[in-house]
Amino acid sequence: MIAKLTLIGLGLIGSSIARAAKRGGLAGEITGHARTAATRAKALELGFCDRVCESAAEAAAGADLVILCVPVGVCGAVAAEIGPALKPGAIVSDVGSVKVSLIADVAPHLPDCVHFVPAHPIAGTEHSGPESGFAELFDGRWCILTPLAGADAEPVERLQAFWEGLGARIDRMEPAHHDLVLAVTSHVPHVIAYTMVGVADHLRRVTGSEVIKFSAAGFRDFTRIAASDPTMWRDVFLNNRAATLDILGRFTEELFMLQRAIRMGDGDYLHDYFSHTREIRRGIIEAGQDTPAADFGRRGSGGQDPGE
Amino acid sequence: MIAKLTLIGLGLIGSSIARAAKRGGLAGEITGHARTAATRAKALELGFCDRVCESAAEAAAGADLVILCVPVGVCGAVAAEIGPALKPGAIVSDVGSVKVSLIADVAPHLPDCVHFVPAHPIAGTEHSGPESGFAELFDGRWCILTPLAGADAEPVERLQAFWEGLGARIDRMEPAHHDLVLAVTSHVPHVIAYTMVGVADHLRRVTGSEVIKFSAAGFRDFTRIAASDPTMWRDVFLNNRAATLDILGRFTEELFMLQRAIRMGDGDYLHDYFSHTREIRRGIIEAGQDTPAADFGRRGSGGQDPGE
Repeated sequence: MIAKLTLIGLGLIGSSIARAAKRGGLAGEITGHARTAATRAKALELGFCDRVCESAAEAAAGADLVILCVPVGVCGAVAAEIGPALKPGAIVSDVGSVKVSLIADVAPHLPDCVHFVPAHPIAGTEHSGPESGFAELFDGRWCILTPLAGADAEPVERLQAFWEGLGARIDRMEPAHHDLVLAVTSHVPHVIAYTMVGVADHLRRVTGSEVIKFSAAGFRDFTRIAASDPTMWRDVFLNNRAATLDILGRFTEELFMLQRAIRMGDGDYLHDYFSHTREIRRGIIEAGQDTPAADFGRRGSGGQDPGE
Repeated sequence: MIAKLTLIGLGLIGSSIARAAKRGGLAGEITGHARTAATRAKALELGFCDRVCESAAEAAAGADLVILCVPVGVCGAVAAEIGPALKPGAIVSDVGSVKVSLIADVAPHLPDCVHFVPAHPIAGTEHSGPESGFAELFDGRWCILTPLAGADAEPVERLQAFWEGLGARIDRMEPAHHDLVLAVTSHVPHVIAYTMVGVADHLRRVTGSEVIKFSAAGFRDFTRIAASDPTMWRDVFLNNRAATLDILGRFTEELFMLQRAIRMGDGDYLHDYFSHTREIRRGIIEAGQDTPAADFGRRGSGGQDPGE
């Protein structure tokens, strides 16, 4: 139980934490701050915060747990702003998709009397803003904690219990290892999806509306993650540059191998490759990280209505 | 109404056509052929065919409409086999994802007294085999007809009415234009998804099971289409080589632009790019070609069960 919880940033993730904390009765009072007056008003209207403050420092003052739910690129500035207002013994955490650079940006601004425990919930949708959050977002999803070397055990365990209360499963990792794993599972898939959608957009000028009309043939699966928040993703790439470029290099090598097999007509190579990738999908479904329903369960989901 | 419908190939697409034809009362009798005895037995057990034959020629004899639902690479051989058995006036069609090479493979084997009308339904799931088909697969999806130059209008219209009866919307296109549009919306997205899944698989050896565990961060969206039928996709790439390599070249150029922006730290370029791709997603949803539900409606779909 956290007597006073403060969320800096009230978009998809921040508002979902607030909703899940209310659902689980995990916090006595929830205070929020958002940069824009429109988001602050929306948060009060939707009711997931008990109190909303105009400044981050005011919101953080006296809190037992402060979670930064803002794009990775502004976490350093927010830490500098709230640092002097923090209560001794408070836990400061975040939800950033990048850890090494975020720790380097945030840690120097925090007083020694608080506990900084970085965290990253592996959950989200393609939507953003306070109205897109929901209490179930973290149910059954992973949250990775990357405690700093020499961190006290007790605040790390308190944060872990909080995330478990939000519905998440917990893993712990070195910050640099986190950044490599996320480059593979998230950052490079996003670059590639953005690229493919960009290419299709150029060709839309050649093919009229056909790219959109016939997107059910495969392309549409890429467009979901390429619709994610632009500011968040800009910051991810700028802050996990080395790992992203490393994995992108591997991707390009591999793509050239497949491209060459197509050009040379090497059917056996292609068939072997495609048989193998099928198994990975099975692993993900067995691990409970995706729905086994055909077509993501789109059948009957409204997207296939003949009348649309 | 087709008095006698024959389906050569009883996998996802063939068995779905049979089921949708029964649902709509579009055919008097449905005859099927599959290469393996196991699939033929399964088809009879599931009951979507009235009759199943051991040879394609026997199945096609006397049919008013014969649809080849086999991988693109074997359509030529199947046409050679059934050609002599076809009834004068019969319509021969297909469901292949590639049109130019398929027409070149099939047309020479068909007698002048039959009508060849190539078609391609833009529908499917990542599953294959006769048990994966369902009657609603084509509802609201597009089916592209690519009639040959100088084709009679009447058989093309009969085939169009048949596909409308299966639930599809119809478009018509030149074969070469079809192959370009599909390279963008389907073939290149599949190469890229296969590549990304292959890269992640290599790294799985470095990261243990983490690639699968944290796949919800974006990677899992690629794995669905990378789980599609290996034989079908090998044949697609070998038969739409030029358009696939052309679009892959554009993709690589574009990827290098984004990669350079990441390396150079060009945040404005990235932000602009990512804002633009978001709009394409909106277009696809407005066109009724995907579900607007967050996360493909995975919420509550079973894949996010905390207990899994």
